Amino acid sequence: MSRDPRQPALAKRRLAIVGVGLMGGSLAAALREAGFAERIVGVDADPAVLEEARSRGLIDCAQDLEVAAAKADIVVLATPLGTLPDLLTRLAHCVPPQTIVTDMGSAKEGVAVAGRDLGLARFVPGHPMAGSECSGPASARADLFAGRSVLLTPTEITAQDAVGAVRAMWEAAGARVILTDAATHDRLVAYTSHLPHLLAFACAELLADQEPVERLAPFVGSGLKDFLRIAGSDPLMWRDVCAANAACLGPALAAFTERLAALSEDLARGDFEGLLEHFARARAFRAGLMKEVADGEH
Amino acid sequence: MSRDPRQPALAKRRLAIVGVGLMGGSLAAALREAGFAERIVGVDADPAVLEEARSRGLIDCAQDLEVAAAKADIVVLATPLGTLPDLLTRLAHCVPPQTIVTDMGSAKEGVAVAGRDLGLARFVPGHPMAGSECSGPASARADLFAGRSVLLTPTEITAQDAVGAVRAMWEAAGARVILTDAATHDRLVAYTSHLPHLLAFACAELLADQEPVERLAPFVGSGLKDFLRIAGSDPLMWRDVCAANAACLGPALAAFTERLAALSEDLARGDFEGLLEHFARARAFRAGLMKEVADGEH
Repeated sequence: MSRDPRQPALAKRRLAIVGVGLMGGSLAAALREAGFAERIVGVDADPAVLEEARSRGLIDCAQDLEVAAAKADIVVLATPLGTLPDLLTRLAHCVPPQTIVTDMGSAKEGVAVAGRDLGLARFVPGHPMAGSECSGPASARADLFAGRSVLLTPTEITAQDAVGAVRAMWEAAGARVILTDAATHDRLVAYTSHLPHLLAFACAELLADQEPVERLAPFVGSGLKDFLRIAGSDPLMWRDVCAANAACLGPALAAFTERLAALSEDLARGDFEGLLEHFARARAFRAGLMKEVADGEH
Repeated sequence: MSRDPRQPALAKRRLAIVGVGLMGGSLAAALREAGFAERIVGVDADPAVLEEARSRGLIDCAQDLEVAAAKADIVVLATPLGTLPDLLTRLAHCVPPQTIVTDMGSAKEGVAVAGRDLGLARFVPGHPMAGSECSGPASARADLFAGRSVLLTPTEITAQDAVGAVRAMWEAAGARVILTDAATHDRLVAYTSHLPHLLAFACAELLADQEPVERLAPFVGSGLKDFLRIAGSDPLMWRDVCAANAACLGPALAAFTERLAALSEDLARGDFEGLLEHFARARAFRAGLMKEVADGEH
């Protein structure tokens, strides 16, 4: 199979990673381990983060966005959703024609449209289904994306070879790449990710109204710990996600509220067999879903 | 310190564990490892479960409830909540006066009242804050209770030395014992455990209405996996919990629904700074709570 002449040889790739926290730092670590890139340049608004990423060997050096983008084969935006439109605008003015740009935002419709409207034919909107409630380069792990899915949502104008290059990058990081469209992505992650985060935040805040932590702690089991883990996520990131995907999150939240009302009625009526049916259906679906996810990871 | 003459010497204690699944089997394993009991008799409605518990060395032998209770120093009820009133009634007719009875039910008001009304002065209602979405003796682990809290809710008639004996048993299993009253217990676990289980079940069932598992799986990240873990719990057990604690779960569910409505309004209004405030408060409380829980475990 002949190599695409526009793709540099494996060990010659130059990457710019914008935002070298948990996500960007982990991608850098994974791609370094895979020998995917010759050089990884870090871009970050926070000099302390850049210095930590450099001292941990995640990046080779730090540069400003325009300088880094001018010499990169792939520019990866690993910054919060809210920063992406502005970054894409800046990149539209400075990237050479062959440069591929991709992102890691948790909602895709907005950035996909922004990239298309800017005429960025080599922008490949992406979303790795991985993360952690931790943040910063100190939390970066080369295996963060291993076995995880990465959703790519190319637009009508996205060049096929750009999609192929971003796919190759994620596969080098150990991820599985799935192509979908931004609307489907946003509708489904509203249910599988954005709504659960909102529920976990709401539950944690409700607990805050009950008793101080010293009083509540003895009543906390391992179930709650797992359930609330995602309420440890970055509030700023989740504000941005809610803002970017309000159109899909709203209906998901409404559907959940309806379902909760049905359970509440069963409870008030004493229809515990009705509750049992819901629980049994939920449990069976979860088991099937988790099996499918686990199968995909291996 | 002189030994309570009513308490048999450590290695002479005879235990009867009623229900030798995950919880009863794990307690048996922990107490065996600690050398707490000379003999552990298993009682279970399912002969296959008894045989598995015996072959795994969790119990020494299997007996009927009345036979086992007649010779036990402590009878531990590790069966579903719904079975407890009937078991307590049977035990009230057959246990010798010195025999201590305790349970592991997730709601305490109902069983505490039942025990008191039966005049069981040596019944100590209990609830270990530990568990797993797995069940059966094959899932039993000697460390299931290590570092976990166990809530005991003695009634007005419960004898102090019975509380002491049950405390000693749980401490031998590695748990921390906290005394509280049944009403406080039920109110707080409605928030820390029962409501989260209901929310996880509701979320899993909502996902079931979206897409088949094959379509959804790529959109599932590690956050959802943790969030939904408790939706893998036994539906029958949770039907019983909801039935036993409907009086506290109802208001908790109503309070959560109100909170969700407030978030929904913020979302609809585009008040993302309002959402941010909620998320930040939730995250801070969770962090404090988890720190307190972790400190208690060590």
